[in-house]
Amino acid sequence: MRISLERNRGSDERPVYRQIADQIQGEIESARLEVGARLPTIRDLARELRVNRDTVAQAYDALAEAGLLESTVGRGTFVAVPAKTNGNGHAFQPSFPALVDRLLAFERARPRFGTTQGAIPMHAVVPDPSLYPADAFRKALSRVLTRGGPELLLYGETQGYAPLRKALSARLRSAGLPATPEEIVLCHGASQGISLALRLFTSQGDAIALEEPTYNNALAAAHAHGLRSVAVPMTPDGPDLGALERALSRPDVKLFYTIPTFHNPMGTTTALAHRRALLDVAHRCGKPVIEDGYEMDLRIDGRATPPLAGLDVSGLVVHLSSFSKSLFPGARVGAVVARGPAVDALLALKHASDLSDSLPLQAALAEFVESGEYERHLGRLRRALLERRDALLEALEKELPEGARWNTPEGGYQVWVELPDGIDTRDLLSDSIRAGVLFAPGSQFNHDGRASQALRLSFAMAGADDLRAGAAKLGRLVRERLAGGEPRRAPAIHV
Amino acid sequence: MRISLERNRGSDERPVYRQIADQIQGEIESARLEVGARLPTIRDLARELRVNRDTVAQAYDALAEAGLLESTVGRGTFVAVPAKTNGNGHAFQPSFPALVDRLLAFERARPRFGTTQGAIPMHAVVPDPSLYPADAFRKALSRVLTRGGPELLLYGETQGYAPLRKALSARLRSAGLPATPEEIVLCHGASQGISLALRLFTSQGDAIALEEPTYNNALAAAHAHGLRSVAVPMTPDGPDLGALERALSRPDVKLFYTIPTFHNPMGTTTALAHRRALLDVAHRCGKPVIEDGYEMDLRIDGRATPPLAGLDVSGLVVHLSSFSKSLFPGARVGAVVARGPAVDALLALKHASDLSDSLPLQAALAEFVESGEYERHLGRLRRALLERRDALLEALEKELPEGARWNTPEGGYQVWVELPDGIDTRDLLSDSIRAGVLFAPGSQFNHDGRASQALRLSFAMAGADDLRAGAAKLGRLVRERLAGGEPRRAPAIHV
Repeated sequence: MRISLERNRGSDERPVYRQIADQIQGEIESARLEVGARLPTIRDLARELRVNRDTVAQAYDALAEAGLLESTVGRGTFVAVPAKTNGNGHAFQPSFPALVDRLLAFERARPRFGTTQGAIPMHAVVPDPSLYPADAFRKALSRVLTRGGPELLLYGETQGYAPLRKALSARLRSAGLPATPEEIVLCHGASQGISLALRLFTSQGDAIALEEPTYNNALAAAHAHGLRSVAVPMTPDGPDLGALERALSRPDVKLFYTIPTFHNPMGTTTALAHRRALLDVAHRCGKPVIEDGYEMDLRIDGRATPPLAGLDVSGLVVHLSSFSKSLFPGARVGAVVARGPAVDALLALKHASDLSDSLPLQAALAEFVESGEYERHLGRLRRALLERRDALLEALEKELPEGARWNTPEGGYQVWVELPDGIDTRDLLSDSIRAGVLFAPGSQFNHDGRASQALRLSFAMAGADDLRAGAAKLGRLVRERLAGGEPRRAPAIHV
Repeated sequence: MRISLERNRGSDERPVYRQIADQIQGEIESARLEVGARLPTIRDLARELRVNRDTVAQAYDALAEAGLLESTVGRGTFVAVPAKTNGNGHAFQPSFPALVDRLLAFERARPRFGTTQGAIPMHAVVPDPSLYPADAFRKALSRVLTRGGPELLLYGETQGYAPLRKALSARLRSAGLPATPEEIVLCHGASQGISLALRLFTSQGDAIALEEPTYNNALAAAHAHGLRSVAVPMTPDGPDLGALERALSRPDVKLFYTIPTFHNPMGTTTALAHRRALLDVAHRCGKPVIEDGYEMDLRIDGRATPPLAGLDVSGLVVHLSSFSKSLFPGARVGAVVARGPAVDALLALKHASDLSDSLPLQAALAEFVESGEYERHLGRLRRALLERRDALLEALEKELPEGARWNTPEGGYQVWVELPDGIDTRDLLSDSIRAGVLFAPGSQFNHDGRASQALRLSFAMAGADDLRAGAAKLGRLVRERLAGGEPRRAPAIHV
């Protein structure tokens, strides 16, 4: 099997994994590789081609999906028997719309962490189960089901359980966002909120502006709705307002998605004056803003800045809120806060998506908030977060080489680290996974997935000791890379 | 206020409510109706114009939404003060994409049941809470949360809790659909399944074929995804296959959505030979079929017919399943069963929509199915359904006038009744609501919402005595209408 790679994008538009997959496909179609033939292992082929193992895995997956290869755990990867035709004819080959193919390509490009039992989890922004008030929630759930009886197992109102909307309204008000319960639409996590808000203002083929870097699932949601994304670079103060104005002035760009508080992945908070200026730009351009406030309850330091939706007087901000990061994801409760006719439109979209959410979970959560249990939990959580953040920042100071830079997040779960020039953090991740430390490479927050010398470290899941150990290992790997310098290119080779 | 109506669609394309709304808007814009002026009550204006109260309510709602009217409960409806402009400028007027406007129009056309405390609920296909095993479910939920601990409150796998997929796989297999757990994607009710399946095969602007009449929320989902609908008329045996072939031969028609078992709203079951012929048509046209099997577990009579997905050997059927009708909606658990590359695409769409569903609910449901509790519940539910169905059918026989026809559903919750010519069941519904009996007029299951002389009666919510009382009242109203003959047109009048 002969595989020749061209890594210079100028001469070959295809990503490397696609080049590999296409050449293997050619070998199969020409029968140079016969049905049943065993392919090299991912590890071997990656070493031979001097590429990432992920890249080879991606190529093999694409071919498996096309029915050309099949893998058996423990045995290896083989050229597949062509799909059987039986009964009423040949196997149906579904043709998916282009957006599904783009979404699948996006999903395939996510980093794979493989079997990571025992690794230090600094990759995911998922709160630590050891901090969940799970027992108290179980009891609340049992209480509301006893009190509510079978009626609580009916469909709920599409807008969501009224007492929880009321409780959330009070919380938002005290955070500087005076929204009535009627302006709140509960939904299935803030992720559903992103989808609903995108659908509210866009049609397939439209574009939306998002910060770069930004939350990768917001990029996935854009793909899933057939939307092109326009990158607005992040500055230390927040999104670049000149770039924002250029983007929102385009007629095809319908809205701006922003994470002003504890930005994901950057951890930064957009300052008050910058928030006002941002609203002025959006207002001038007449385009709505989706404010993702998913970590708003997680401030551990500094002074609270009012949410964009609280500063906005003309009703152009749709605000997203969530309990997934401040309590736990299992409640699957988020909220969209909007004004005027947007509320009815959101309700219609939500109803047509899944009718309503689970009442027992919403009712238990309402009791949790009303009883003060949620606020007490936040107190405990913030203390744990403060300890973890400080442990991580101190360790970074000690372990990372000169030239590395990071910020001090005032809340939330993530620190953004920029490494010295020349390091592609996707490559670093391969070493790091082997060393038992997981992180999120910056590339996954770029709109086009291009390489990045930055990475996101999360202190959501790991405790202080693990964070220190993780930072030490990471520091060592970065130094090794800076010292050694892995080959950046590989010639055509025979396998 | 002078309002002139033209009910003959030939000369005015606008629906009647829109004609009313537009004329009132003209009065306001010309200041013939001044800010603060009180409008006639819905009841009075409906009587004067000789239209349905719903029609006037729809007109008032449309004007309220446009900010021209405001209503205060107990005080009445008034011409509104124009929207305030303040702070950084005038109020933001969001422009929604065309599909959102179409979806809102569709939602507004749904019948309104108003305050119906004490009415006999034969309108909704929502199982009766008095039949829910609520206490057993509460205990199962508490057990799985105790056993699973905080980890059960993490995000779940996007595909859904593996033990529940395994349990569902076994159930489907015994119903004639041999799907592996890997071919099942759990989702947030079958309604989310409809959305995901539509998105799998269509882009905005495409068309899809659906039976007529069909499940109105499937029509809503089509609107919500910007899809045009093509009607395939229902015959007593199932969808008209000639019409189906013509529809699926069109390049813009991407799939067929069908409810072969206990059809909603018709209650009929597509016969085995017809199912095979339907698959042949789809296969010939190379178009996928979405089979909504939401009531499959509710057979009370006759012999089971294998699901389309079980008869299909080429993998063109995507099957939807749900616990909402056979257990209760509150679990919010449905499933999409698919094959091959469709599974990955569904997972990507589901992940981009809301990441994952609630693990505790899925885990409790898994325990419920595995322990045999679900099957025991189904036994009790089917006995109750059989009694209710027979009570309703006997009462219809006794109470409905000659010329009315209905079928005998072998399962599920609904009977489709066709009334003698000349009765518009939307009009009948207004009388019926006043008389304390609710039903679903046939118009809401038509693609274009046009009038129908049919109605759907549900025996999901009401017990046998209520069903008998409801049928008696309904019979009386139908006889009155046939005898009296309400005016079908009204001239222009002054109010």
